[in-house]
Amino acid sequence: MPPSYLHIQIRKQAKTPLFRQVYEKIRDDILTGSLSPGTLLPPTRRLAKELQISRNVILEAYGQLHAEGYIEAGAGSHTRVAQDTHYRQYKKTPRTDLKPDLKPARFDIAFQTGIPDLSLFPRALWGKYLKAAAIEAREDELAYDTPSGHEGLRQVLADYLYKSRGISIPADRIIITSGATQALFLTALMLYKDGCEAIIEDPGGFGVIEILRTVGYRLCPMAANGGDLDISRLPLTSATRMVYVTPSHQFPMGNIMPVATRISLLKCLHAKNAILIEDDYDSEFRYDGAPIHPLKALDPEQVVYVGSFSKVLSPALRIGYAVLPETLLEPFRRLKRFSDAQSPLIDQIALKNFIRDGAFEKHVYKMKKRYEKKRNVLMDSLLGAFGSSVRIYGEAAGLHMVAEFKDIRFDLDSGFEVCHNRVLIPSVEKHTVQKGRHTHQLVFGYGNLSEDRIIRGITALNRFR
Amino acid sequence: MPPSYLHIQIRKQAKTPLFRQVYEKIRDDILTGSLSPGTLLPPTRRLAKELQISRNVILEAYGQLHAEGYIEAGAGSHTRVAQDTHYRQYKKTPRTDLKPDLKPARFDIAFQTGIPDLSLFPRALWGKYLKAAAIEAREDELAYDTPSGHEGLRQVLADYLYKSRGISIPADRIIITSGATQALFLTALMLYKDGCEAIIEDPGGFGVIEILRTVGYRLCPMAANGGDLDISRLPLTSATRMVYVTPSHQFPMGNIMPVATRISLLKCLHAKNAILIEDDYDSEFRYDGAPIHPLKALDPEQVVYVGSFSKVLSPALRIGYAVLPETLLEPFRRLKRFSDAQSPLIDQIALKNFIRDGAFEKHVYKMKKRYEKKRNVLMDSLLGAFGSSVRIYGEAAGLHMVAEFKDIRFDLDSGFEVCHNRVLIPSVEKHTVQKGRHTHQLVFGYGNLSEDRIIRGITALNRFR
Repeated sequence: MPPSYLHIQIRKQAKTPLFRQVYEKIRDDILTGSLSPGTLLPPTRRLAKELQISRNVILEAYGQLHAEGYIEAGAGSHTRVAQDTHYRQYKKTPRTDLKPDLKPARFDIAFQTGIPDLSLFPRALWGKYLKAAAIEAREDELAYDTPSGHEGLRQVLADYLYKSRGISIPADRIIITSGATQALFLTALMLYKDGCEAIIEDPGGFGVIEILRTVGYRLCPMAANGGDLDISRLPLTSATRMVYVTPSHQFPMGNIMPVATRISLLKCLHAKNAILIEDDYDSEFRYDGAPIHPLKALDPEQVVYVGSFSKVLSPALRIGYAVLPETLLEPFRRLKRFSDAQSPLIDQIALKNFIRDGAFEKHVYKMKKRYEKKRNVLMDSLLGAFGSSVRIYGEAAGLHMVAEFKDIRFDLDSGFEVCHNRVLIPSVEKHTVQKGRHTHQLVFGYGNLSEDRIIRGITALNRFR
Repeated sequence: MPPSYLHIQIRKQAKTPLFRQVYEKIRDDILTGSLSPGTLLPPTRRLAKELQISRNVILEAYGQLHAEGYIEAGAGSHTRVAQDTHYRQYKKTPRTDLKPDLKPARFDIAFQTGIPDLSLFPRALWGKYLKAAAIEAREDELAYDTPSGHEGLRQVLADYLYKSRGISIPADRIIITSGATQALFLTALMLYKDGCEAIIEDPGGFGVIEILRTVGYRLCPMAANGGDLDISRLPLTSATRMVYVTPSHQFPMGNIMPVATRISLLKCLHAKNAILIEDDYDSEFRYDGAPIHPLKALDPEQVVYVGSFSKVLSPALRIGYAVLPETLLEPFRRLKRFSDAQSPLIDQIALKNFIRDGAFEKHVYKMKKRYEKKRNVLMDSLLGAFGSSVRIYGEAAGLHMVAEFKDIRFDLDSGFEVCHNRVLIPSVEKHTVQKGRHTHQLVFGYGNLSEDRIIRGITALNRFR
């Protein structure tokens, strides 16, 4: 009996199962055209004997090839290669892999904004809560739950927002999102219409600018240069769909929007039926008083309130939320449902218990003391090094402050950042729409830097001038 | 000394801190207009004495009111209510709450598709992996990581896709998403242009239809009525941006797309430069052979391959992935970054270790045997009850099958589902774009039903006819 024309090399020691070796060789020969349509395959018994393997292996391989349409049973028990099975583009590629794209640690000291002190992330405790949540989750919750997020978490969050911010809403107004990013993205997408505009503070947040641009908004900046907004000059038009603000701690400049400005802003929006998005991104950490009374509490039906656990715990958890006006609740739920169904359940249960047990408040308290110390070290270093030629903004809250340098200019790397001696400090310029006005102001995110690094960073900056 | 006109009632036993009681009363009186602009506030010493509380409490309250712009320091040490602080719309609302909207368990036995056996979700083991992941996560990973997802998870996933599906791609072609839902949503959003069209199988998936409609596509159905697609009649136009298919196990009909159809589909798309989306939603569970060789392996640059861990573990984990052509990698990454930054990190690390340690394969093996048993029970029940008047489709794989009833019609609830005696069975009709052709076919999702319930469900259906 002559050997079959299939040229299958069986490797009995290989990890790949025998049936797969036979199946893959024949399949690839058919796809590449080595075995053309109509070709008769050898009978299973004969092939088994020839390859010295069990006939069941051949039957399994032929079965798979048949199921996928590569071969078909002909007259008698003949098996032939099926028609139209040659694909010129097909290449059998070996498993290659890129090296992991490790980003080289370019900077020793990076004054990044929005990153909490990750060395104090309560790993063991959070891990315990996660484990307990995996045990606690009800069976029906492990299927698809409501897109709004876990009922229990929304309840404790509603209580928390009432106690800490004076926002009085039922839990069903809250939708749990994948961080504030998703809350903003979905709100922007929900409100979007062709040719529409969004008003944002300028400087504002780099991330927000990119989110709104990604959705397709035309951005209308309003100057927020450290002082108060002039609402009479708000660039409000009939195309304005939303106004995005950070009234508790303007990002990045840090001022609190006075209540008179809040009221006149809300009145403007009522007139134009535009939605206000209030991003309360870090007001857990206010050092010189209590969290600020939000716009949402003044006018719940005009404001989408956005919050996040990224600054308090870790951005990597991806848990944030939107508190919506009643009219926007169903459209937002629908968008959440068809964009990612819901947020992960076990994480939500863990967070619910973490808040309920008081671990959250304890953590905020501990971190606030820690950040206050860092803030003081940073202010002392800046004032010590630059004296009256530096002016500091927004130090009353949060994880960053802005310093404005009189008569000092630093070289900005691609217009956005001071990069010197492995120290990185972003410019306010990075967070602007209208460029060129804020090159003398730097943003110092200090949340994730040790006091020692803060001091070394400012020393390096001082030597650089 | 006459009492001040502030009428503050201090409740010393209340949970609300004293400073908050003072602050909130004055703030609300200003907002509602009871205290009008220009009104002089009592000096702090006097108010403290009158309320019989520490002056520091009053200083703190005034400090907060001042920071928020409600009051301003006038001449001398006088403090007055600031201008423009009255907001007619403001209502001080007590903390109300809705009752939790518990959905009544309307059905005892629901043949839902796409839900795995949740009673076998490995809670304790998964909890252990989550806890370990919270400990293992590197500090820099707890900040914002790459939008593509955890490097380690993408590595093990690339290995898994090669071994189990023959897809040979480097790990950086994979982007981790919040379930297949997000992979589809972001792909659809990325490819979207005004007036564009998507071709989908009909019947297809209810969820997919809604996702594409939400993004704004015009849907062009191609009949997939249990048999093969006729690619020569593909409704491909210059507006077609994507073709969505489930070739390994057509949803819901269950057939495998033959390789000849695959090849002619790919050739068509090459000509029109449209992208193929291949949703391989449940092919881990193929009972009569190995997982099907995907379209992605035939032509990596034309196909977005979408997968999910929802069917193998639980939908509530929200972990899925997209494997992208090189040209779409950067646009997709950008969209992921600005839609939700990244997927939660700790969950990804847990899954990485779960796969790496072999726990994943073990779980798949165990579940497959379990589902095969359920499938056999369901087929036996259907054939036993309906004999030759039922025809079964798509039973070779997955967590559901379709049964077509000859000369039997069931009352469909709102055209979509059989609801009888607390038993729910969706119709294929639910998953169609063109209505009215599939009312005699029901979809039996059996993944999350016990064998006993399967039998009782079919008995109830039989009595109902």
